[in-house]
Amino acid sequence: MNSSTTQKIDIQKVSTSRIGDVDFDNLTFGSTFSDHMFECDYKDGEWQNPTIKPYGPLTISPAAKVFHYGQAVFEGMKAFKDEDGKVWLFRPEENFNRINRSSKRMAIPEFPKDIFFEALTTLVKMDKDWVKPGLGNSLYIRPFVMATQVGVSASPSTEYKFMILMSPAQAYYTGDVKVVIAEHYSRSANGGVGAAKAAGNYGAQFFPTNLAREKGFQQVIWTDASDHKYLEEAGTMNVFFRVNDTLLTAPISDRILDGVTRKSVIAIAKRDNINVEERPVLVSEIVEAAKNGSLKEIFGAGTAAVISPVSAFSYKETVYELEMQKNGFATRFKNELMNIQYNRSEDPFGWRFEVV
Amino acid sequence: MNSSTTQKIDIQKVSTSRIGDVDFDNLTFGSTFSDHMFECDYKDGEWQNPTIKPYGPLTISPAAKVFHYGQAVFEGMKAFKDEDGKVWLFRPEENFNRINRSSKRMAIPEFPKDIFFEALTTLVKMDKDWVKPGLGNSLYIRPFVMATQVGVSASPSTEYKFMILMSPAQAYYTGDVKVVIAEHYSRSANGGVGAAKAAGNYGAQFFPTNLAREKGFQQVIWTDASDHKYLEEAGTMNVFFRVNDTLLTAPISDRILDGVTRKSVIAIAKRDNINVEERPVLVSEIVEAAKNGSLKEIFGAGTAAVISPVSAFSYKETVYELEMQKNGFATRFKNELMNIQYNRSEDPFGWRFEVV
Ligand SMILES: Cc1ncc(COP(=O)(O)O)c(C=O)c1O
Ligand SMILES: Cc1ncc(COP(=O)(O)O)c(C=O)c1O
Repeated sequence: MNSSTTQKIDIQKVSTSRIGDVDFDNLTFGSTFSDHMFECDYKDGEWQNPTIKPYGPLTISPAAKVFHYGQAVFEGMKAFKDEDGKVWLFRPEENFNRINRSSKRMAIPEFPKDIFFEALTTLVKMDKDWVKPGLGNSLYIRPFVMATQVGVSASPSTEYKFMILMSPAQAYYTGDVKVVIAEHYSRSANGGVGAAKAAGNYGAQFFPTNLAREKGFQQVIWTDASDHKYLEEAGTMNVFFRVNDTLLTAPISDRILDGVTRKSVIAIAKRDNINVEERPVLVSEIVEAAKNGSLKEIFGAGTAAVISPVSAFSYKETVYELEMQKNGFATRFKNELMNIQYNRSEDPFGWRFEVV
Repeated sequence: MNSSTTQKIDIQKVSTSRIGDVDFDNLTFGSTFSDHMFECDYKDGEWQNPTIKPYGPLTISPAAKVFHYGQAVFEGMKAFKDEDGKVWLFRPEENFNRINRSSKRMAIPEFPKDIFFEALTTLVKMDKDWVKPGLGNSLYIRPFVMATQVGVSASPSTEYKFMILMSPAQAYYTGDVKVVIAEHYSRSANGGVGAAKAAGNYGAQFFPTNLAREKGFQQVIWTDASDHKYLEEAGTMNVFFRVNDTLLTAPISDRILDGVTRKSVIAIAKRDNINVEERPVLVSEIVEAAKNGSLKEIFGAGTAAVISPVSAFSYKETVYELEMQKNGFATRFKNELMNIQYNRSEDPFGWRFEVV
């Protein structure tokens, strides 16, 4: 990690907030941004000039390496407001550690912890009115890093920009999520960058996901690239399978993102004496379980929607429907997690982080 | 492909050229740019406002999807000046077709052929003084496309920017290229985006390439991600192995870029009755050939350096040295290709494209 610079953050406030122009009842996920953003540049071997300023456009060379070589990583986290108006983050240290792991894999210099937390908490405090109360409302927080050095030659950048944007979000109603199990395309390779939140991992999924959409499915569950035999994860969610009362999920590997929601679900399940198996999950065993009725639930776990129950999956041209459970594991974990996030319950694991 | 719009390109010339400030004898590859650049935006379902303007910075939202999801592709090609001052491109149609294949895989709308060629030739004509005569000198041309829609949600952008930058280049002296054969990390997966010139493929290689550099090697030769048994390609070059008088190279697949230099080498070799085998090449057979003396040459083939002879490779902690051949296949193909590119020989394949 880079040595801590303990530089003070330069703060430039907006003259007038844009908050009055925003219709908080009709938000499209990730398209409206709060008043301020954070920016910090890496140059001459160190992170410098940490600045909070009005959200607005960048001036950047078209030859910046991020455009050409995708040397960029990001994070996704949320701030929640409780009924007393206090604002909370959920396990922010996990996101901090993960962005630095992602950076390392992408040959990007790690970001100092003190500046990260100082920037994050200052920004959330300044824009706390953008965090609306009410279960499901949140402020989505997007830290990211991009390579800014000018140069169209394929080598690591010597300059970077670390930023944080914030975007108000409503309950992410995913509706009925129907998924396709990948049989041809794949998301990541052994020894590749799948475990990093590297920008290019996401763009690479758009085309196969479009193909799934055209057939009436919303997401793809990726399988291993070698044989398409093992279930891995979805585009922005880890995936759980409930077979009878056992919860199955793929183990973390260099192909799979180590999701914060995933590890929180596992912790809750274990505390509740639910049998959890983190092990390679065969497509064939899930198909078999669907056929013999032992497959009770499939759900995705990720920051955006917390828990997304899957109502059907398609494999080898057959669609397997799942009966949606009102009081299944998905609902239970979702409630449990949201109660912690919104300070509506005890916090036995110490996951809440008070901002203001 | 998008329907041809036959829109006229808006041309904004620089008031004063920067060419006088450039030291053409000391160029760092890809870091100096010619006076003009091309820009065209995709909006409301069509490519619009094709513009040639002074090279300079962009104003772009930090929430543009390219920064977050790596939805971006590029090309690399060169313009050459002959002794009469005429300027030539080499097989530009291949690059045009390839950028659209890359775009398709990345869910980016394809670019119209007429605007591509009109922009490319107009730009090269306007900046033709930046193409210096002399074998090895060239103007490197970088077409690229990036997702510009504002939005931090992982779905395809509805807006894009297509650009062309040009950068003067000198003979790319690669020196002695020593390579590491990948045993752990990998570049691309079956069903992934390796065959596309997708931005993220390149950033993903920086870290493992740095590890190789630390050990005194310049590049990695990637192997299949499943078993690391087959030799695939290098970071920005396809790779050829000469065993006795047979030329071996990996077949094109969804993991390997269909290089223009590669296919040109194969065409020349076939014309010259050299035995060429495009087939999976085992690491073990190359190691064996190195041991028994039948491995005569390894060389990379790509636009930047044309042909790069490899002087040593490392595999399982053993370094295998190759005797550099003054009159080997590498030298022969390099000369043959450059003579065609610089209009110093016949053009039996019809590869040259006269610009001005
Ligand atoms: C590929 C991928 N898998 C899983 C997740 C879920 O991770 P988390 O629970 O930390 O949001 C994400 C991110 O949101 C992701 O991008
Ligand atoms: C991954 C990769 N392989 C091979 C090549 C060589 O292709 P070309 O000969 O068309 O330059 C390139 C690009 O330059 C590349 O990026």
